[in-house]
Amino acid sequence: MPGGSRREEIGQRVLSANDRIAAENRARFKAAGLYVLNLIGSPGSGKTSILEATVRRLGLRMGVIQGDVQTSLDAARVRAAGAESVQIETGGACHLDARMVARAMRELPLEALDLVFIENVGNLVCPTGYDLGEDEKVAVLSVPEGDEKPVKYPALFVRAGVVLINKTDLVPHTNFSMERVKGDLDKLHAGVTVLAMSCRSGEGLQAWCDYLRRRAGAGN
Amino acid sequence: MPGGSRREEIGQRVLSANDRIAAENRARFKAAGLYVLNLIGSPGSGKTSILEATVRRLGLRMGVIQGDVQTSLDAARVRAAGAESVQIETGGACHLDARMVARAMRELPLEALDLVFIENVGNLVCPTGYDLGEDEKVAVLSVPEGDEKPVKYPALFVRAGVVLINKTDLVPHTNFSMERVKGDLDKLHAGVTVLAMSCRSGEGLQAWCDYLRRRAGAGN
Repeated sequence: MPGGSRREEIGQRVLSANDRIAAENRARFKAAGLYVLNLIGSPGSGKTSILEATVRRLGLRMGVIQGDVQTSLDAARVRAAGAESVQIETGGACHLDARMVARAMRELPLEALDLVFIENVGNLVCPTGYDLGEDEKVAVLSVPEGDEKPVKYPALFVRAGVVLINKTDLVPHTNFSMERVKGDLDKLHAGVTVLAMSCRSGEGLQAWCDYLRRRAGAGN
Repeated sequence: MPGGSRREEIGQRVLSANDRIAAENRARFKAAGLYVLNLIGSPGSGKTSILEATVRRLGLRMGVIQGDVQTSLDAARVRAAGAESVQIETGGACHLDARMVARAMRELPLEALDLVFIENVGNLVCPTGYDLGEDEKVAVLSVPEGDEKPVKYPALFVRAGVVLINKTDLVPHTNFSMERVKGDLDKLHAGVTVLAMSCRSGEGLQAWCDYLRRRAGAGN
Protein backbone atom coordinates (compact mmCIF):
# COMPACT_ATOMS: atom_id res chain seq x y z
CA MET A 1 0.00 0.00 0.00
CA PRO A 2 2.45 2.70 -1.03
CA GLY A 3 1.25 6.29 -1.45
CA GLY A 4 -0.12 7.97 -4.55
CA SER A 5 -3.73 9.08 -4.86
CA ARG A 6 -4.23 7.26 -8.19
CA ARG A 7 -3.30 3.99 -6.55
CA GLU A 8 -5.46 4.75 -3.52
CA GLU A 9 -8.42 5.44 -5.78
CA ILE A 10 -7.94 2.12 -7.57
CA GLY A 11 -7.57 0.50 -4.16
CA GLN A 12 -10.94 1.94 -3.10
CA ARG A 13 -12.61 0.58 -6.22
CA VAL A 14 -11.10 -2.86 -5.70
CA LEU A 15 -12.31 -2.82 -2.10
CA SER A 16 -15.88 -1.95 -2.97
CA ALA A 17 -15.95 -4.67 -5.66
CA ASN A 18 -14.70 -6.97 -2.89
CA ASP A 19 -17.51 -5.84 -0.59
CA ARG A 20 -20.14 -6.65 -3.22
CA ILE A 21 -18.82 -10.18 -3.68
CA ALA A 22 -18.50 -10.59 0.10
CA ALA A 23 -22.19 -9.70 0.46
CA GLU A 24 -23.06 -12.39 -2.11
CA ASN A 25 -20.92 -14.93 -0.25
CA ARG A 26 -22.65 -13.98 3.00
CA ALA A 27 -26.09 -14.45 1.47
CA ARG A 28 -25.09 -17.85 0.06
CA PHE A 29 -23.69 -19.01 3.43
CA LYS A 30 -26.80 -17.74 5.20
CA ALA A 31 -29.09 -19.56 2.78
CA ALA A 32 -27.28 -22.76 3.70
CA GLY A 33 -27.78 -21.99 7.42
CA LEU A 34 -24.04 -21.77 8.07
CA TYR A 35 -22.07 -19.79 10.63
CA VAL A 36 -18.78 -18.66 9.07
CA LEU A 37 -15.58 -17.66 10.85
CA ASN A 38 -12.56 -15.94 9.28
CA LEU A 39 -9.42 -17.01 11.16
CA ILE A 40 -6.61 -14.43 11.04
CA GLY A 41 -3.18 -14.60 12.65
CA SER A 42 0.57 -14.53 12.06
CA PRO A 43 2.37 -17.38 10.33
CA GLY A 44 2.89 -20.05 12.95
CA SER A 45 0.31 -18.73 15.41
CA GLY A 46 -1.35 -22.16 15.24
CA LYS A 47 -4.39 -21.59 13.02
CA THR A 48 -4.22 -25.01 11.36
CA SER A 49 -3.55 -26.82 14.64
CA ILE A 50 -6.59 -25.11 16.16
CA LEU A 51 -8.69 -26.27 13.20
CA GLU A 52 -7.43 -29.85 13.50
CA ALA A 53 -8.20 -29.93 17.23
CA THR A 54 -11.60 -28.31 16.61
CA VAL A 55 -12.60 -30.81 13.92
CA ARG A 56 -11.66 -33.70 16.21
CA ARG A 57 -13.58 -32.40 19.26
CA LEU A 58 -16.52 -30.41 18.00
CA GLY A 59 -18.72 -33.14 16.60
CA LEU A 60 -20.18 -30.82 13.95
CA ARG A 61 -19.75 -31.10 10.18
CA MET A 62 -17.09 -28.57 9.31
CA GLY A 63 -15.99 -27.09 6.04
CA VAL A 64 -12.67 -25.31 5.79
CA ILE A 65 -11.45 -22.90 3.13
CA GLN A 66 -7.71 -22.39 3.51
CA GLY A 67 -5.53 -19.73 2.01
CA ASP A 68 -1.82 -20.15 1.64
CA VAL A 69 0.74 -18.32 -0.42
CA GLN A 70 2.08 -21.68 -1.50
CA THR A 71 1.63 -25.42 -0.76
CA SER A 72 -1.46 -27.36 0.29
CA LEU A 73 0.01 -28.77 3.50
CA ASP A 74 -2.71 -27.21 5.65
CA ALA A 75 -5.65 -28.63 3.70
CA ALA A 76 -4.20 -32.12 3.97
CA ARG A 77 -3.99 -31.72 7.76
CA VAL A 78 -7.61 -30.66 8.35
CA ARG A 79 -8.87 -33.21 5.85
CA ALA A 80 -7.05 -35.94 7.74
CA ALA A 81 -8.80 -34.68 10.89
CA GLY A 82 -12.20 -35.14 9.20
CA ALA A 83 -13.28 -31.81 7.70
CA GLU A 84 -14.25 -30.97 4.15
CA SER A 85 -11.47 -28.73 2.90
CA VAL A 86 -10.67 -26.57 -0.11
CA GLN A 87 -7.23 -25.04 -0.51
CA ILE A 88 -6.63 -21.69 -2.17
CA GLU A 89 -3.04 -21.08 -3.23
CA THR A 90 -2.89 -17.30 -3.53
CA GLY A 91 0.33 -17.43 -5.55
CA GLY A 92 2.00 -14.60 -3.69
CA ALA A 93 -1.01 -12.58 -2.55
CA CYS A 94 -0.85 -11.75 1.14
CA HIS A 95 -4.54 -12.13 2.01
CA LEU A 96 -7.70 -13.80 0.80
CA ASP A 97 -10.29 -11.72 -0.99
CA ALA A 98 -14.01 -12.35 -1.45
CA ARG A 99 -13.61 -13.52 -5.05
CA MET A 100 -11.20 -16.30 -4.05
CA VAL A 101 -13.66 -17.43 -1.38
CA ALA A 102 -16.60 -17.27 -3.84
CA ARG A 103 -14.75 -19.71 -6.11
CA ALA A 104 -13.66 -22.01 -3.31
CA MET A 105 -17.07 -22.25 -1.63
CA ARG A 106 -18.54 -23.79 -4.78
CA GLU A 107 -16.39 -26.83 -4.09
CA LEU A 108 -17.84 -27.33 -0.60
CA PRO A 109 -21.09 -29.28 0.05
CA LEU A 110 -22.55 -26.29 1.92
CA GLU A 111 -25.96 -27.85 2.62
CA ALA A 112 -24.29 -30.81 4.33
CA LEU A 113 -22.27 -28.66 6.75
CA ASP A 114 -22.91 -27.00 10.13
CA LEU A 115 -20.03 -24.55 10.26
CA VAL A 116 -17.42 -23.07 7.92
CA PHE A 117 -13.95 -21.79 8.77
CA ILE A 118 -11.94 -19.64 6.43
CA GLU A 119 -8.27 -19.88 7.39
CA ASN A 120 -6.65 -16.75 6.03
CA VAL A 121 -3.06 -16.35 4.82
CA GLY A 122 -0.66 -16.08 7.78
CA ASN A 123 -0.48 -12.31 8.19
CA LEU A 124 -1.60 -9.96 10.99
CA VAL A 125 -2.04 -6.94 8.72
CA CYS A 126 -3.41 -7.35 5.20
CA PRO A 127 -6.27 -9.86 5.70
CA THR A 128 -7.90 -7.53 8.22
CA GLY A 129 -9.33 -5.11 5.65
CA TYR A 130 -10.99 -7.69 3.39
CA ASP A 131 -14.53 -8.81 4.12
CA LEU A 132 -14.93 -12.37 2.83
CA GLY A 133 -18.59 -12.81 3.74
CA GLU A 134 -17.89 -14.23 7.19
CA ASP A 135 -20.08 -13.75 10.26
CA GLU A 136 -17.13 -13.15 12.52
CA LYS A 137 -13.39 -12.58 12.44
CA VAL A 138 -11.32 -14.67 14.86
CA ALA A 139 -7.91 -13.28 15.83
CA VAL A 140 -5.29 -15.86 16.72
CA LEU A 141 -2.39 -14.61 18.85
CA SER A 142 0.17 -17.14 20.06
CA VAL A 143 2.03 -16.68 23.33
CA PRO A 144 5.57 -16.63 21.84
CA GLU A 145 4.63 -13.70 19.57
CA GLY A 146 4.51 -11.50 22.66
CA ASP A 147 1.87 -9.78 24.74
CA GLU A 148 2.25 -6.35 23.06
CA LYS A 149 0.83 -7.47 19.70
CA PRO A 150 -2.74 -6.12 20.16
CA VAL A 151 -1.31 -2.63 20.74
CA LYS A 152 1.05 -2.91 17.75
CA TYR A 153 -1.49 -4.40 15.31
CA PRO A 154 -4.78 -2.97 16.58
CA ALA A 155 -6.75 -3.14 13.31
CA LEU A 156 -7.34 -6.87 13.63
CA PHE A 157 -8.12 -6.85 17.33
CA VAL A 158 -10.76 -4.12 17.12
CA ARG A 159 -12.56 -6.05 14.37
CA ALA A 160 -12.38 -9.56 15.82
CA GLY A 161 -15.41 -11.01 17.59
CA VAL A 162 -13.19 -13.41 19.48
CA VAL A 163 -9.48 -13.50 20.27
CA LEU A 164 -7.81 -16.88 20.76
CA ILE A 165 -4.62 -16.72 22.81
CA ASN A 166 -2.93 -19.91 21.69
CA LYS A 167 0.08 -21.95 22.89
CA THR A 168 -0.52 -21.19 26.56
CA ASP A 169 1.73 -24.18 27.33
CA LEU A 170 4.65 -21.88 26.43
CA VAL A 171 3.75 -19.19 29.01
CA PRO A 172 6.26 -20.52 31.59
CA HIS A 173 9.07 -20.26 29.01
CA THR A 174 8.38 -16.65 27.96
CA ASN A 175 7.69 -13.30 29.63
CA PHE A 176 4.14 -13.21 28.24
CA SER A 177 1.67 -11.57 30.63
CA MET A 178 -1.90 -12.76 30.24
CA GLU A 179 -3.03 -9.83 32.41
CA ARG A 180 -1.32 -7.31 30.16
CA VAL A 181 -2.82 -8.70 26.97
CA LYS A 182 -6.30 -8.97 28.47
CA GLY A 183 -6.04 -5.42 29.80
CA ASP A 184 -4.93 -4.10 26.40
CA LEU A 185 -7.67 -6.00 24.58
CA ASP A 186 -10.25 -4.62 26.98
CA LYS A 187 -9.08 -1.07 26.20
CA LEU A 188 -9.03 -1.67 22.44
CA HIS A 189 -12.27 -3.59 22.20
CA ALA A 190 -14.35 -3.70 25.34
CA GLY A 191 -16.35 -6.88 25.70
CA VAL A 192 -14.46 -8.93 23.10
CA THR A 193 -14.43 -12.65 23.90
CA VAL A 194 -10.93 -13.81 24.85
CA LEU A 195 -10.20 -17.53 25.06
CA ALA A 196 -6.83 -18.90 26.18
CA MET A 197 -5.94 -22.29 24.76
CA SER A 198 -3.26 -24.81 23.95
CA CYS A 199 -3.57 -27.50 21.33
CA ARG A 200 -0.70 -29.36 23.02
CA SER A 201 -2.13 -29.47 26.54
CA GLY A 202 -5.78 -29.29 25.49
CA GLU A 203 -6.39 -26.28 27.78
CA GLY A 204 -9.32 -24.17 26.69
CA LEU A 205 -10.45 -26.36 23.79
CA GLN A 206 -13.67 -27.29 25.53
CA ALA A 207 -14.62 -23.63 26.09
CA TRP A 208 -13.80 -22.87 22.45
CA CYS A 209 -15.95 -25.76 21.19
CA ASP A 210 -18.82 -24.64 23.47
CA TYR A 211 -18.49 -21.14 21.99
CA LEU A 212 -18.69 -22.55 18.45
CA ARG A 213 -21.70 -24.73 19.25
CA ARG A 214 -23.56 -21.66 20.53
CA ARG A 215 -22.56 -19.68 17.43
CA ALA A 216 -23.58 -22.49 15.10
CA GLY A 217 -26.97 -22.56 16.83
CA ALA A 218 -26.40 -26.21 17.69
CA GLY A 219 -27.43 -25.77 21.31
CA ASN A 220 -25.26 -25.58 24.43
CA MET B 1 -3.02 -7.86 -4.39
CA PRO B 2 -6.40 -8.76 -5.88
CA GLY B 3 -6.69 -9.52 -9.60
CA GLY B 4 -7.42 -7.13 -12.44
CA SER B 5 -4.87 -6.24 -15.10
CA ARG B 6 -5.37 -2.48 -14.55
CA ARG B 7 -4.40 -2.86 -10.92
CA GLU B 8 -1.47 -5.10 -11.80
CA GLU B 9 -0.24 -2.52 -14.28
CA ILE B 10 -0.43 0.23 -11.65
CA GLY B 11 1.29 -2.15 -9.22
CA GLN B 12 4.15 -2.61 -11.71
CA ARG B 13 4.56 1.14 -12.08
CA VAL B 14 4.61 1.64 -8.31
CA LEU B 15 7.21 -1.09 -8.01
CA SER B 16 9.53 0.38 -10.61
CA ALA B 17 9.21 3.83 -8.96
CA ASN B 18 10.14 2.01 -5.77
CA ASP B 19 13.18 0.43 -7.45
CA ARG B 20 14.43 3.83 -8.59
CA ILE B 21 14.23 5.27 -5.09
CA ALA B 22 15.81 2.11 -3.66
CA ALA B 23 18.77 2.58 -6.03
CA GLU B 24 19.17 6.14 -4.75
CA ASN B 25 19.04 4.93 -1.15
CA ARG B 26 21.66 2.28 -1.94
CA ALA B 27 23.98 4.87 -3.50
CA ARG B 28 23.58 7.13 -0.46
CA PHE B 29 24.30 4.29 1.99
CA LYS B 30 27.30 3.22 -0.09
CA ALA B 31 28.69 6.77 -0.17
CA ALA B 32 28.62 6.71 3.63
CA GLY B 33 30.44 3.36 3.64
CA LEU B 34 27.57 1.54 5.32
CA TYR B 35 26.45 -2.07 5.13
CA VAL B 36 22.65 -2.22 5.28
CA LEU B 37 20.48 -5.16 6.31
CA ASN B 38 16.69 -5.45 5.84
CA LEU B 39 15.25 -7.60 8.65
CA ILE B 40 12.05 -9.41 7.68
CA GLY B 41 9.97 -11.80 9.79
CA SER B 42 6.55 -12.48 11.28
CA PRO B 43 5.15 -10.39 14.12
CA GLY B 44 6.75 -11.72 17.27
CA SER B 45 9.60 -13.58 15.58
CA GLY B 46 11.99 -11.51 17.71
CA LYS B 47 13.34 -8.90 15.30
CA THR B 48 13.52 -6.12 17.91
CA SER B 49 15.01 -8.41 20.56
CA ILE B 50 17.71 -9.46 18.08
CA LEU B 51 18.49 -5.80 17.40
CA GLU B 52 18.69 -4.99 21.11
CA ALA B 53 21.06 -7.92 21.74
CA THR B 54 23.10 -7.00 18.66
CA VAL B 55 23.51 -3.35 19.69
CA ARG B 56 24.67 -4.44 23.14
CA ARG B 57 27.24 -6.98 21.91
CA LEU B 58 28.49 -5.80 18.55
CA GLY B 59 30.54 -2.79 19.57
CA LEU B 60 29.85 -1.01 16.25
CA ARG B 61 27.90 2.19 15.78
CA MET B 62 24.47 1.08 14.61
CA GLY B 63 21.61 2.95 13.02
CA VAL B 64 18.16 1.40 12.97
CA ILE B 65 15.18 2.33 10.81
CA GLN B 66 12.08 0.63 12.16
CA GLY B 67 8.73 0.17 10.54
CA ASP B 68 5.60 -0.50 12.48
CA VAL B 69 1.96 -0.28 11.59
CA GLN B 70 1.39 1.60 14.82
CA THR B 71 3.29 2.63 18.00
CA SER B 72 6.96 3.47 18.51
CA LEU B 73 7.63 0.85 21.17
CA ASP B 74 10.38 -0.80 19.10
CA ALA B 75 12.41 2.36 18.50
CA ALA B 76 12.41 3.11 22.22
CA ARG B 77 13.81 -0.37 22.88
CA VAL B 78 16.77 -0.19 20.47
CA ARG B 79 17.50 3.40 21.48
CA ALA B 80 17.69 2.31 25.10
CA ALA B 81 20.18 -0.36 23.98
CA GLY B 82 22.40 2.32 22.45
CA ALA B 83 21.58 2.60 18.72
CA GLU B 84 20.52 5.60 16.70
CA SER B 85 16.93 4.90 15.74
CA VAL B 86 14.23 6.36 13.53
CA GLN B 87 10.69 5.02 13.69
CA ILE B 88 8.38 4.89 10.68
CA GLU B 89 4.72 4.44 11.54
CA THR B 90 3.26 3.10 8.30
CA GLY B 91 -0.30 3.90 9.38
CA GLY B 92 -1.74 0.62 8.17
CA ALA B 93 0.65 -0.26 5.35
CA CYS B 94 1.92 -3.82 5.61
CA HIS B 95 5.52 -3.25 4.47
CA LEU B 96 8.13 -0.55 4.18
CA ASP B 97 8.83 0.95 0.77
CA ALA B 98 11.92 2.76 -0.49
CA ARG B 99 10.33 6.20 -0.18
CA MET B 100 9.65 5.72 3.53
CA VAL B 101 13.26 4.66 4.03
CA ALA B 102 14.55 7.61 1.96
CA ARG B 103 12.75 9.98 4.33
CA ALA B 104 13.83 8.18 7.49
CA MET B 105 17.53 7.89 6.56
CA ARG B 106 17.81 11.68 6.43
CA GLU B 107 17.28 11.66 10.18
CA LEU B 108 20.22 9.33 10.81
CA PRO B 109 23.84 10.56 11.16
CA LEU B 110 24.97 8.20 8.38
CA GLU B 111 28.62 9.30 8.33
CA ALA B 112 28.93 8.53 12.04
CA LEU B 113 27.67 4.93 11.71
CA ASP B 114 29.20 1.55 10.83
CA LEU B 115 26.09 -0.46 10.05
CA VAL B 116 22.39 0.14 9.41
CA PHE B 117 19.47 -2.19 10.09
CA ILE B 118 16.06 -1.69 8.61
CA GLU B 119 13.49 -3.54 10.71
CA ASN B 120 10.54 -4.16 8.42
CA VAL B 121 6.88 -4.41 9.45
CA GLY B 122 6.12 -7.80 11.01
CA ASN B 123 4.98 -9.73 7.95
CA LEU B 124 6.44 -12.76 6.12
CA VAL B 125 4.84 -11.91 2.78
CA CYS B 126 4.51 -8.30 1.65
CA PRO B 127 7.91 -6.81 2.62
CA THR B 128 9.68 -9.41 0.49
CA GLY B 129 8.95 -7.76 -2.85
CA TYR B 130 10.12 -4.25 -1.95
CA ASP B 131 13.75 -3.31 -2.42
CA LEU B 132 14.63 -0.63 0.14
CA GLY B 133 18.22 -0.10 -0.93
CA GLU B 134 19.66 -2.69 1.46
CA ASP B 135 22.71 -4.85 0.78
CA GLU B 136 21.10 -7.95 2.15
CA LYS B 137 17.76 -9.27 3.36
CA VAL B 138 17.78 -11.13 6.66
CA ALA B 139 14.94 -13.59 7.26
CA VAL B 140 13.97 -14.13 10.89
CA LEU B 141 12.12 -17.35 11.65
CA SER B 142 11.32 -18.18 15.27
CA VAL B 143 11.10 -21.74 16.51
CA PRO B 144 7.47 -21.60 17.73
CA GLU B 145 6.31 -20.55 14.24
CA GLY B 146 7.11 -24.05 13.04
CA ASP B 147 9.71 -25.71 10.85
CA GLU B 148 7.56 -25.77 7.70
CA LYS B 149 7.56 -21.99 7.20
CA PRO B 150 10.33 -21.83 4.53
CA VAL B 151 8.30 -24.19 2.33
CA LYS B 152 5.07 -22.25 2.92
CA TYR B 153 6.55 -18.76 2.45
CA PRO B 154 9.43 -19.42 0.03
CA ALA B 155 9.64 -15.92 -1.51
CA LEU B 156 11.45 -14.50 1.50
CA PHE B 157 13.77 -17.44 2.01
CA VAL B 158 15.01 -17.56 -1.57
CA ARG B 159 15.87 -13.84 -1.40
CA ALA B 160 17.48 -13.71 2.04
CA GLY B 161 21.27 -13.71 2.33
CA VAL B 162 21.03 -15.04 5.86
CA VAL B 163 18.32 -16.82 7.83
CA LEU B 164 18.21 -16.39 11.59
CA ILE B 165 16.43 -19.20 13.40
CA ASN B 166 15.51 -17.47 16.63
CA LYS B 167 14.18 -18.61 20.03
CA THR B 168 16.11 -21.89 20.00
CA ASP B 169 15.54 -22.02 23.79
CA LEU B 170 11.97 -23.09 22.90
CA VAL B 171 13.02 -26.13 20.82
CA PRO B 172 12.53 -28.59 23.74
CA HIS B 173 8.93 -27.35 24.17
CA THR B 174 7.89 -27.70 20.50
CA ASN B 175 8.16 -30.27 17.72
CA PHE B 176 10.47 -28.03 15.69
CA SER B 177 13.10 -29.97 13.75
CA MET B 178 16.28 -28.03 13.05
CA GLU B 179 17.28 -30.74 10.54
CA ARG B 180 14.04 -30.37 8.62
CA VAL B 181 14.29 -26.61 8.36
CA LYS B 182 17.95 -26.70 7.38
CA GLY B 183 17.22 -29.36 4.76
CA ASP B 184 14.34 -27.33 3.32
CA LEU B 185 16.40 -24.14 3.26
CA ASP B 186 19.21 -25.97 1.49
CA LYS B 187 16.75 -27.10 -1.20
CA LEU B 188 15.19 -23.65 -1.59
CA HIS B 189 18.40 -21.65 -1.48
CA ALA B 190 21.60 -23.67 -1.55
CA GLY B 191 24.43 -22.06 0.35
CA VAL B 192 22.31 -19.58 2.31
CA THR B 193 23.83 -18.75 5.72
CA VAL B 194 21.71 -20.17 8.53
CA LEU B 195 22.36 -19.08 12.11
CA ALA B 196 20.48 -20.53 15.08
CA MET B 197 20.17 -18.21 18.05
CA SER B 198 18.36 -17.33 21.23
CA CYS B 199 18.28 -13.87 22.75
CA ARG B 200 17.23 -15.45 26.06
CA SER B 201 20.04 -17.98 26.37
CA GLY B 202 22.56 -16.03 24.30
CA GLU B 203 23.16 -19.03 22.00
CA GLY B 204 24.45 -18.05 18.58
CA LEU B 205 24.75 -14.31 19.27
CA GLN B 206 28.53 -14.42 19.02
CA ALA B 207 28.43 -16.10 15.59
CA TRP B 208 25.86 -13.53 14.42
CA CYS B 209 28.01 -10.62 15.61
CA ASP B 210 31.06 -12.15 13.90
CA TYR B 211 29.03 -12.40 10.69
CA LEU B 212 28.04 -8.72 10.96
CA ARG B 213 31.61 -7.59 11.64
CA ARG B 214 32.76 -9.35 8.49
CA ARG B 215 29.91 -7.82 6.50
CA ALA B 216 30.58 -4.36 7.87
CA GLY B 217 34.22 -4.78 6.82
CA ALA B 218 35.28 -4.23 10.40
CA GLY B 219 37.62 -7.20 10.45
CA ASN B 220 37.15 -10.61 12.04
